[in-house]
Amino acid sequence: MSLPPQLTRVGLRDVQRPVARELEQVVDELRRVIAADFPVIEDVNHHLLRMKGKLFRPTLLLLSNLASGGRTPRAVTLAAVVELIHLATLVHDDSVDHSVRRRGLPTVNALFSHQVAVIMGDYLYSRAIIELVNLDDLDPLRVLARVTNEMTVGEMRQLEAHDRLAYGEEAYDRLIRAKTASLVSGACEVGALRADPAHRAALSRFGMSLGMAFQITDDLLDYTQPEAVTGKPSGLDLREHKVTLPLIVALPRMDPAGRRVVEELMASVEPADALVAEVMRLVDLAGGLAEARRRAGELAQQAEAELELLPPTPARDALRDSIAYAVERQR
Amino acid sequence: MSLPPQLTRVGLRDVQRPVARELEQVVDELRRVIAADFPVIEDVNHHLLRMKGKLFRPTLLLLSNLASGGRTPRAVTLAAVVELIHLATLVHDDSVDHSVRRRGLPTVNALFSHQVAVIMGDYLYSRAIIELVNLDDLDPLRVLARVTNEMTVGEMRQLEAHDRLAYGEEAYDRLIRAKTASLVSGACEVGALRADPAHRAALSRFGMSLGMAFQITDDLLDYTQPEAVTGKPSGLDLREHKVTLPLIVALPRMDPAGRRVVEELMASVEPADALVAEVMRLVDLAGGLAEARRRAGELAQQAEAELELLPPTPARDALRDSIAYAVERQR
Repeated sequence: MSLPPQLTRVGLRDVQRPVARELEQVVDELRRVIAADFPVIEDVNHHLLRMKGKLFRPTLLLLSNLASGGRTPRAVTLAAVVELIHLATLVHDDSVDHSVRRRGLPTVNALFSHQVAVIMGDYLYSRAIIELVNLDDLDPLRVLARVTNEMTVGEMRQLEAHDRLAYGEEAYDRLIRAKTASLVSGACEVGALRADPAHRAALSRFGMSLGMAFQITDDLLDYTQPEAVTGKPSGLDLREHKVTLPLIVALPRMDPAGRRVVEELMASVEPADALVAEVMRLVDLAGGLAEARRRAGELAQQAEAELELLPPTPARDALRDSIAYAVERQR
Repeated sequence: MSLPPQLTRVGLRDVQRPVARELEQVVDELRRVIAADFPVIEDVNHHLLRMKGKLFRPTLLLLSNLASGGRTPRAVTLAAVVELIHLATLVHDDSVDHSVRRRGLPTVNALFSHQVAVIMGDYLYSRAIIELVNLDDLDPLRVLARVTNEMTVGEMRQLEAHDRLAYGEEAYDRLIRAKTASLVSGACEVGALRADPAHRAALSRFGMSLGMAFQITDDLLDYTQPEAVTGKPSGLDLREHKVTLPLIVALPRMDPAGRRVVEELMASVEPADALVAEVMRLVDLAGGLAEARRRAGELAQQAEAELELLPPTPARDALRDSIAYAVERQR
């Protein structure tokens, strides 16, 4: 007798077990690094710490550190910096997208102002650089500066993916590499900077495949999950005319009538709920969700193969579980 | 017989003479550093290079380098990076302020979009960090990361200086230190990183006083210069309810009737030209412009005193001329 599927799922808590103590230190470290002697900044910091996510990137950094034979004390600081860079990116992304909610809470641009959001992202990012300089080592700076730059190019690519039904799978791949996977890969690589170069390279590639699978899953959740679960309105990407993998692969398989419905949505400034729901149904019907799931599974396998290059340890097992978490999560 | 005053003024070209060749290289270096393999970014780069200012900060960096006994080859790259950080800040500032023109050209947010401006600022800043990492030296990174962070705090202070007639001279001092003088000081310090520590410290303090005098002069020009000269509408700060030094010092000297006119302007979302002109006249009448000029002159003297600590060289003379340029310029 097998367990019902939801009980066999890997929870993030399982993934985080080998580094649970360090993750608590990461939160303290984050608090220390962003502290400011200025009222508005402190207010935003307070809000961001409430909004603080699941620490997925710090988890991967700490596990990569362990799995490549280290337990370097600075790993906690590096993990906090990686989360900080992630936070800075989210604050600017929400401002660029005019998003109003994130993780069930109002975004910085919505709660404070667009102006505060732009400045605050710059504040967080420059605090991250200061902290990296204080570690007196150029290697993490080299990786994370490159990654941050890639993310900005990813954001530019994201602008391109608006209202463009001609947007293809290759362009989408480049987009999610730059926007999401580069930082996940960077987190894994920075955790293994002092490891055997072969392990470092394997973890970097692991992070790239994992990050892409993670983003595809995110884009899928937009099609499959109700607002109550994700904290974002369902079908938000479609409402905002963002073209992601399920639609990209479904579109060429649709009949002219279906395609016209999609075009109608893209032409509508504020698409009605019924129209959004209809496009979601058509994308599923054309196999868009199934194909996106298949692609995420393929990337998950590539990530898993990279882990074979590492010695067997509980940390490596946890990294393997992180793949399952990334592609099976419901939010 | 003395020359008419405008002919005795120091031009920026005079200041730049000892480093004219290096400044040409700075422009090439800037072009190289910001180059991107992505159409939108290349379009913005092209626009930014057209908008490129007077290279005041690179000039100071190169002169500080010379005046402290160096002619280090990397100074050109450092000068390009400092200009790049300045550009990144301008792009975000214009976006935060919803400014439409800068140096007589449309701003990035106006010509492209607010979204492109936010992402582009991040792009430029992360390119600057990559370039600093490539120099394989943590010292310039340490100075410039601190400065960049100070500038973001300065921008937050700037938000505070809106609509607030209680905004005082001390708060204004802190604001212009963080917003403007920190980068000018950082440019001078980075030019002298490998110099005698006493010279490095003197140049850092020189830059701080010079930067403050420069910003006060900027705020004065908003009161005194027509749009045709500055490339910005005259009285723009007042129109945008920005409280700067002339108004801060004039306000307590005004009679109740005058103060009511200022309050009327601050209460008006889009103040009429006549109202702006009337407040400008009242500020002048109360001695606001004269007092701001006196303060700029005081800071100029402090900057000049720091230069006494350096050996006499043509580069030191040019730095002295840069003070005259900063406080006497008409745009």
